[in-house]
Amino acid sequence: MSGEGMGMALEIVGQSVPRSDGQEKVAGQARYMDAIDLPGMLVGRVLRSTVPHGRLRRVDAEKARRVPGVVTVVTGESLRRDGRLNPYYGPALLDQPVLAIDKVLYVGDPVAAVAAVDEESALEALDLIEVEYEELPAVFEPLDAIAPGAPLLHEGELKPGGLFVDLTDVHPVPGTNICNHYVMKKGDGEAGFRHADIVIEQTFSIPETQHYPLEPHSVLAWVDPSGRIALYANTQQPFIVRAQLADIFQVPPSHIRIMVPYLGGAYGAKCYPKAEPIATVLAWFARRPVKLTFTREEVFLTITKHATVVKMKSGAMRDGTLVARKVECYLGTGAYAEIGPRVSKKMGTNGAGPYRIPHVQMDAYCIIYTNKPPAGAFRGYGLPQVTWAFEQQMDTLARELRIDPVEIRLKNLFVDGDTFWYGERLNALGLRECLLKAAAAIRWGEPSQALPGKRRGKGLAIMLKTLTHGASIAFVKVDDDGTAKVLTSTVEMGQGSDTVLAQIAAEELGLPVERVSMAHPDTDFTPFDDKTSGSRSTVAMGKAVLLAAREARERLLELAAEQLEASVHDLEVRRGQVRVRGTDRALDVAQVVRAHFRSKGGTIMGRGEFHTKLAREEFWFAAAGAAEVEVDPETGEVRVLKYVGACDVGKAINPHLCQQQVLGGAVMGLGQTFSEEMVYDHGQLLNPSLINYKLPAFRDLPAQLEVILLETPYSEGPFGAKGVGESAVPPVAAAIGNALVDAIGVRLYELPITAEKVLKALEEAGGAGPVGAGGAR
Amino acid sequence: MSGEGMGMALEIVGQSVPRSDGQEKVAGQARYMDAIDLPGMLVGRVLRSTVPHGRLRRVDAEKARRVPGVVTVVTGESLRRDGRLNPYYGPALLDQPVLAIDKVLYVGDPVAAVAAVDEESALEALDLIEVEYEELPAVFEPLDAIAPGAPLLHEGELKPGGLFVDLTDVHPVPGTNICNHYVMKKGDGEAGFRHADIVIEQTFSIPETQHYPLEPHSVLAWVDPSGRIALYANTQQPFIVRAQLADIFQVPPSHIRIMVPYLGGAYGAKCYPKAEPIATVLAWFARRPVKLTFTREEVFLTITKHATVVKMKSGAMRDGTLVARKVECYLGTGAYAEIGPRVSKKMGTNGAGPYRIPHVQMDAYCIIYTNKPPAGAFRGYGLPQVTWAFEQQMDTLARELRIDPVEIRLKNLFVDGDTFWYGERLNALGLRECLLKAAAAIRWGEPSQALPGKRRGKGLAIMLKTLTHGASIAFVKVDDDGTAKVLTSTVEMGQGSDTVLAQIAAEELGLPVERVSMAHPDTDFTPFDDKTSGSRSTVAMGKAVLLAAREARERLLELAAEQLEASVHDLEVRRGQVRVRGTDRALDVAQVVRAHFRSKGGTIMGRGEFHTKLAREEFWFAAAGAAEVEVDPETGEVRVLKYVGACDVGKAINPHLCQQQVLGGAVMGLGQTFSEEMVYDHGQLLNPSLINYKLPAFRDLPAQLEVILLETPYSEGPFGAKGVGESAVPPVAAAIGNALVDAIGVRLYELPITAEKVLKALEEAGGAGPVGAGGAR
Repeated sequence: MSGEGMGMALEIVGQSVPRSDGQEKVAGQARYMDAIDLPGMLVGRVLRSTVPHGRLRRVDAEKARRVPGVVTVVTGESLRRDGRLNPYYGPALLDQPVLAIDKVLYVGDPVAAVAAVDEESALEALDLIEVEYEELPAVFEPLDAIAPGAPLLHEGELKPGGLFVDLTDVHPVPGTNICNHYVMKKGDGEAGFRHADIVIEQTFSIPETQHYPLEPHSVLAWVDPSGRIALYANTQQPFIVRAQLADIFQVPPSHIRIMVPYLGGAYGAKCYPKAEPIATVLAWFARRPVKLTFTREEVFLTITKHATVVKMKSGAMRDGTLVARKVECYLGTGAYAEIGPRVSKKMGTNGAGPYRIPHVQMDAYCIIYTNKPPAGAFRGYGLPQVTWAFEQQMDTLARELRIDPVEIRLKNLFVDGDTFWYGERLNALGLRECLLKAAAAIRWGEPSQALPGKRRGKGLAIMLKTLTHGASIAFVKVDDDGTAKVLTSTVEMGQGSDTVLAQIAAEELGLPVERVSMAHPDTDFTPFDDKTSGSRSTVAMGKAVLLAAREARERLLELAAEQLEASVHDLEVRRGQVRVRGTDRALDVAQVVRAHFRSKGGTIMGRGEFHTKLAREEFWFAAAGAAEVEVDPETGEVRVLKYVGACDVGKAINPHLCQQQVLGGAVMGLGQTFSEEMVYDHGQLLNPSLINYKLPAFRDLPAQLEVILLETPYSEGPFGAKGVGESAVPPVAAAIGNALVDAIGVRLYELPITAEKVLKALEEAGGAGPVGAGGAR
Repeated sequence: MSGEGMGMALEIVGQSVPRSDGQEKVAGQARYMDAIDLPGMLVGRVLRSTVPHGRLRRVDAEKARRVPGVVTVVTGESLRRDGRLNPYYGPALLDQPVLAIDKVLYVGDPVAAVAAVDEESALEALDLIEVEYEELPAVFEPLDAIAPGAPLLHEGELKPGGLFVDLTDVHPVPGTNICNHYVMKKGDGEAGFRHADIVIEQTFSIPETQHYPLEPHSVLAWVDPSGRIALYANTQQPFIVRAQLADIFQVPPSHIRIMVPYLGGAYGAKCYPKAEPIATVLAWFARRPVKLTFTREEVFLTITKHATVVKMKSGAMRDGTLVARKVECYLGTGAYAEIGPRVSKKMGTNGAGPYRIPHVQMDAYCIIYTNKPPAGAFRGYGLPQVTWAFEQQMDTLARELRIDPVEIRLKNLFVDGDTFWYGERLNALGLRECLLKAAAAIRWGEPSQALPGKRRGKGLAIMLKTLTHGASIAFVKVDDDGTAKVLTSTVEMGQGSDTVLAQIAAEELGLPVERVSMAHPDTDFTPFDDKTSGSRSTVAMGKAVLLAAREARERLLELAAEQLEASVHDLEVRRGQVRVRGTDRALDVAQVVRAHFRSKGGTIMGRGEFHTKLAREEFWFAAAGAAEVEVDPETGEVRVLKYVGACDVGKAINPHLCQQQVLGGAVMGLGQTFSEEMVYDHGQLLNPSLINYKLPAFRDLPAQLEVILLETPYSEGPFGAKGVGESAVPPVAAAIGNALVDAIGVRLYELPITAEKVLKALEEAGGAGPVGAGGAR
């Protein structure tokens, strides 16, 4: 029967088969949004607010409408006047207008949109739209936004957004800028701190950063003559965007069709509606196809990673046992809630770190409206921010208590059989193994020799993230030429899902992997999937694909049994042939299909679904990072000599792709650690381009970048697989922060780590401390 | 359980719900080929042979290639030189080149094709292609083409075409122009004739005619950068065309994607490859999308109905009992076999008429290559030609034996329980009922009063046609908003399949019909279907849809049972609500889906298939036609006063659409009877336009046109339904031919019936006979 079930040797799963999209991508033949045009297509462009907070006194588009080539100019007022649409949307709260109505809330807030026959006409029209603002006091930092007397951004009642079935996930605090207050309490925090031998309290902060997918947001929308709405869109969440648009246009979701080509990266930036509402509204008014592609500056103004302040207080016994922790997270979510409430929930859930602590108070709130661009899902979903805090605090405790940082973690960390904060039994964690493997790879405990005048140090960090829930459904269609097509709504955005899902289907169907192709998402044809995010596709969709392939295979075997006059139990299907085991009686899968239908054609379809209800066990992603750095105390310059990312992937369906995920995650973490930061002046973004916003380049990478994949099988995952998309990112900054302390004895609390900050910290500390060597002290 | 199974009152099936495509078609919003463009699309045009038979001495496209705007010029020679393609195709025999190679076989044979940026450039290029022919002797009529010394059109070996799994369906006679010889023999014909009291022998003939769908053949083909081939095409057979193109391009069928929009009529003209091979070859060379739409003249030169000569000899006893029949059919299939071999088989199978005859010799051959455009599938598939013969011969026998024409038919016709020629047990025929109802409606036996100087007469005819075999597969997808989408590859070509299939799905799913939509064929997503032809969609695809909807419904009920904490057996689903019977505990289908997936989305999929192997019973279409005509013996003009079409539809899923099928079929039959005929001069078609080729207009229609639907349920059909697409056509000509004899005593043997032919026949007979009144003599 199943290769998975029978412990038969795997032929395709576990192999680093080449990416199915590799050749066409390398040859420049892959179809991205940029390559998709339609006849009669218009160009969309957006006019954005120039003030951070203001009332709209007047938006006059008369002159713009008279520009030759301009087909449609839409403003918030046109939407309200038209009356057929619901102009507000938002996954968590219904707080974001398609185009600003009455107020603007940040520099970059969309005020009006134009569709014209070419870009020149569209830009000319934007210039001619007259907007008068009445500026209002603005607030930019999360802590300022909850201070007494802070200006209130959203004055009306906050209604739940389209995504949530109920309000259990979102708790706005009326009359404040708090759009979600997340609380978690275990034990008695104050008693815990009283009982502790040592209590430390620190504040960490992380700035807004960019996901920076190479491809900007882009949508091509049109309205069929029949009134049905269709879009090509580079979204990670076709079904969520469909539901959100259905709410805007007040039609059933099936009235809207969303097709997704390859994505040029996403990292969370293409979750939830982005360019889709404006593009679709333009197409709806213009009754012609409209393509709206954001400029890089617009991407900067559309979505960010949450700037966060984490106040963390921990109490421990002399032997390093943690007894109490109190965490307060303040996430600046920008002008609209977007998915911030859920990010804060996830950050809260994981914010105490992967440690057994009897008394925990995640009295931890927040998500706060500020007059900045909205923040949302970012690879790691709250973990990068909070890991920067709890793993540095763990290191601080170790240093204060003179315990080896690995030791103190081993003493406290969750192990299989422990109970997580919400009562789930932890299992198949792989966390301890990640930590030990990473430590070994960095030669933890062995001193390393710095160049003269330089200082070296080592540090490490771990993280544990809960699974992202949601339903995934797959269909596997076997065609009459013995090929199979896998129909899912998983978005191939560079992560390799097409390859991995095809491997799973091929393994289970017994077909060569070249005979399996992947359909790209098309909500009219591919089945529902919650989303491509949260490291969930290999696990949830992979399992759905496995089950769908199994159903198709069982059907094939039934038919072949009839044709080969054999029992189903005596059949195996491998390399495209159904064979009576141990004989040469065999049929190609193509023959089986055709013979059944007595025709030159036929289709066999298998279905599979996976969702929380079906998972008998939860699972967690574990990862560790370890870094060795060299610091120049004269300049403050920090170089990473070696970085090790160790992730538990359950089962590496495609080891090469897993390695690339971990490598990519580490590089992304390095960017966030050292150079990435959105810089504002009174709400005006100063660096919305690669010139001033510095992503890591090849020369910024460590000389050694090592990946360790661990395989602690997850019982519900396909062939034991867990996800791996995010887990490499969160440990990076804290591992480096800890290595910095090891090297020069000073700790930084604010990301990014810059030479200036290192120098300043050294000056304040009166110079570098003793030479470090990881735990060797 | 099922509405079908439980005898519950039907809510949607049996109702004349409005066509689902009606509103958008009336509003001009429906998307036909003409509305489909792609950016960078080129225009394709074809250069065609000007001689009926010749060797190609030279095809020089050099000048054409230099025309500005011309991207590609392809000739048969370029295909052969390129070597990557197989330039020959054909469903029955591999005898048709994409573009002529070495020889041309008819005036209109494609010789070269051009793709250019606009039509002007393409036409200019066509003008500049230099072709030198060496003319060869040509042959045009089927009987001439089998005469000794006739020129041989296809000189090489004939290979089986792509459609047939084996050669059981096609029997070419080597060294002749015969591409299929069909033989059927029961009993001992000669002995039968010797035993008979009366033997008559007649020869009937039918000219080439046109299907004349309003929309010409049109294809938009392109080749993806990845090398996959995609087409929008207005074909009735996306999967057959896919297989044929796969053979041409030597790729697996799944490498090709065919999408089919609405068709503006077809009637068999859009079966098998038409414009697809040329358009795709152009796109393949040009590496740009190419749209090729045939002009009306090209449609005339692409496909026709088979010109046929039927020699029929019958022997009967004095009481009218048939004892022997010998039939010879000579079908002129034109320059390429196309599907002619199968048409001749079907004509042969049904050619002895729907009568019990102990001795039958369908020594009946043929299909003959002639230097004319190819003939192929035409609504009724051989029956229109052969019914014109056997039903006039039946009338002749009745007159000779002085037996009422209804009586003689009743005495001989097949009834339930009889055995058909191939051993199948006949059942649920409805044939007798059709005959009796049609006779009653025309007031058979009651004399009718002609105007002074005119003659009136009545006539009738019946037909029985076997089911067209093949596999149909359907998927029914229930979306999370409680709507359903039916995925089939059935082509909506005006016949109303979208509406009827949606009704079947809605009835079975318990959803309002407005909540069910139909996907159009897309071979990447919609499952295999043999074809949309042969009156098979309501039966075969209807049954597949029923079974798919049933599987989806059973799944929904399972989920709802869990949610409602009830037994599946206590649940019913009606009008979109799953309800515990007799209570008000109910859930909307949308809620059931979402609750199961614990999400705002989800997809439930049901699958259904129907094919010959699954049908425990065969079935037959029965129909009768009855006409009353008025003839002016001075002018020969024949007016149809009343025409009655009676068809057994098993169960009218949508009575209004069934009526329209019968009406449309009758009108088509009237055109074929009175005015339609392709006229040639040495192979050159003289009337390829509506000016000279006369379709019936409204003023040509009978004053009374009556439809009778009978419902003799077919046990395997969905809700008992049979097909109805073709059955009204075949009886028309013979019923009118018989009425003509009743009116003026003379019989015509050649279609169409024109005033000239009537006058000439009257002259030859020495004037009109006695006044007739149907069977009243």
